[in-house]
Amino acid sequence: MKHLGKQTWVIAEGYIPKYGNGPEPEFTSHETACILNTGDEEANVKITIFFSDKEPVGPYHVKVAPRRTSHLRFNNLEDPEPIPKGTDYSSVIESDVPIVVQHSRLDSRQAENALLTTIAFSQ
Amino acid sequence: MKHLGKQTWVIAEGYIPKYGNGPEPEFTSHETACILNTGDEEANVKITIFFSDKEPVGPYHVKVAPRRTSHLRFNNLEDPEPIPKGTDYSSVIESDVPIVVQHSRLDSRQAENALLTTIAFSQ
Amino acid sequence: MKHLGKQTWVIAEGYIPKYGNGPEPEFTSHETACILNTGDEEANVKITIFFSDKEPVGPYHVKVAPRRTSHLRFNNLEDPEPIPKGTDYSSVIESDVPIVVQHSRLDSRQAENALLTTIAFSQ
Amino acid sequence: MKHLGKQTWVIAEGYIPKYGNGPEPEFTSHETACILNTGDEEANVKITIFFSDKEPVGPYHVKVAPRRTSHLRFNNLEDPEPIPKGTDYSSVIESDVPIVVQHSRLDSRQAENALLTTIAFSQ
Repeated sequence: MKHLGKQTWVIAEGYIPKYGNGPEPEFTSHETACILNTGDEEANVKITIFFSDKEPVGPYHVKVAPRRTSHLRFNNLEDPEPIPKGTDYSSVIESDVPIVVQHSRLDSRQAENALLTTIAFSQ
Repeated sequence: MKHLGKQTWVIAEGYIPKYGNGPEPEFTSHETACILNTGDEEANVKITIFFSDKEPVGPYHVKVAPRRTSHLRFNNLEDPEPIPKGTDYSSVIESDVPIVVQHSRLDSRQAENALLTTIAFSQ
Repeated sequence: MKHLGKQTWVIAEGYIPKYGNGPEPEFTSHETACILNTGDEEANVKITIFFSDKEPVGPYHVKVAPRRTSHLRFNNLEDPEPIPKGTDYSSVIESDVPIVVQHSRLDSRQAENALLTTIAFSQ
Repeated sequence: MKHLGKQTWVIAEGYIPKYGNGPEPEFTSHETACILNTGDEEANVKITIFFSDKEPVGPYHVKVAPRRTSHLRFNNLEDPEPIPKGTDYSSVIESDVPIVVQHSRLDSRQAENALLTTIAFSQ
């Protein structure tokens, strides 16, 4: 299949809850960028994180193999530094080939989990 | 009415929870692609499922009659093979006439159900 | 302000839960199309409802005054006929001037309410 | 990074719940416009609020610094006047440089919080 999507995506909403309830890792509170690479070339993806009160951090480098999806947990980004929990942020996701990005969160701070999702902004 | 929408849609987020709570089938955990065909010709729809660690599976073939909506549960796709539960996936939905696709999930793993939805990415 | 938005909108996902919990009408299960008319002319809006197993119903006629928002509950549409509960449907919303449409649902079937929203598809 | 996004955004759905449960301010019911300014110039943002039964109010003036995100709580807008709770509204967000806007809500009226989000409509 050809490379579907766009090369630049923006998720303006970002927040990793500080804690969670329920069996881990399934019910660990987390924030995810679901990245789909439909094409036959590897996607080299750069993620930059923006904050409300300090300079952006990044880029974080991620690869998505051809014809694969990566449900990337922001909780797991570590290089150059972990994203602090309980902090507002935004992310810009850039790829050298077209990809599709969808944003979701599982919030398990209270007994019952809450979910959100949206397609990211592309240009 | 004329055929509204696009012929190619992408849902990057996909996950069928392994279990649920509450009366079935209303509260069975499920993931849905709501497909609307507003026009007067039948839509021949092909769905391809992408995974994080193996080659894509499909296409699954679905027909949506003229002037009809189909709230397609991914749980019910069986040919060429069922989608495994508790596994990250993405989907590409292609049609021979324009359609509109919206993604939603009911997650009933815990006592209270959680919902999410988003319009899919189109091009 | 000028008329922002588009004249044709599609919400592929539609479902009015059969029942709810909590004080009414605030916690009555409901499905909403939030329609914003930013401009100085009244918007004459036509809504057509599509089903999975019968011909479309409508149009339902709604007016949105200049510089006003209407958070329209599908539960309240009555002419030509009420939308059945517990039934899958989709909607097409057409206006004679540009408007913006966002879809949301409060599902209060269980003790704790669940929410979803998405911007509708426009063309 | 260059200025990503658009200069005009619309959130048709708006509603600040009247009350909440859980530790404040983390679990105070709130409605948020997450605004990202990726570029090197400050964004001067104007927000206009539309109602169902009276003339629009605004503009509210907000600045977003270069390379910063602002997770703006509508609850906190005060000049020219606070947004009433328990009332349907819509918002138009205009900026002198491109920005990206995502809408979200935490509804904590019941014991378990509910979440929603969507990318706003841009043009």
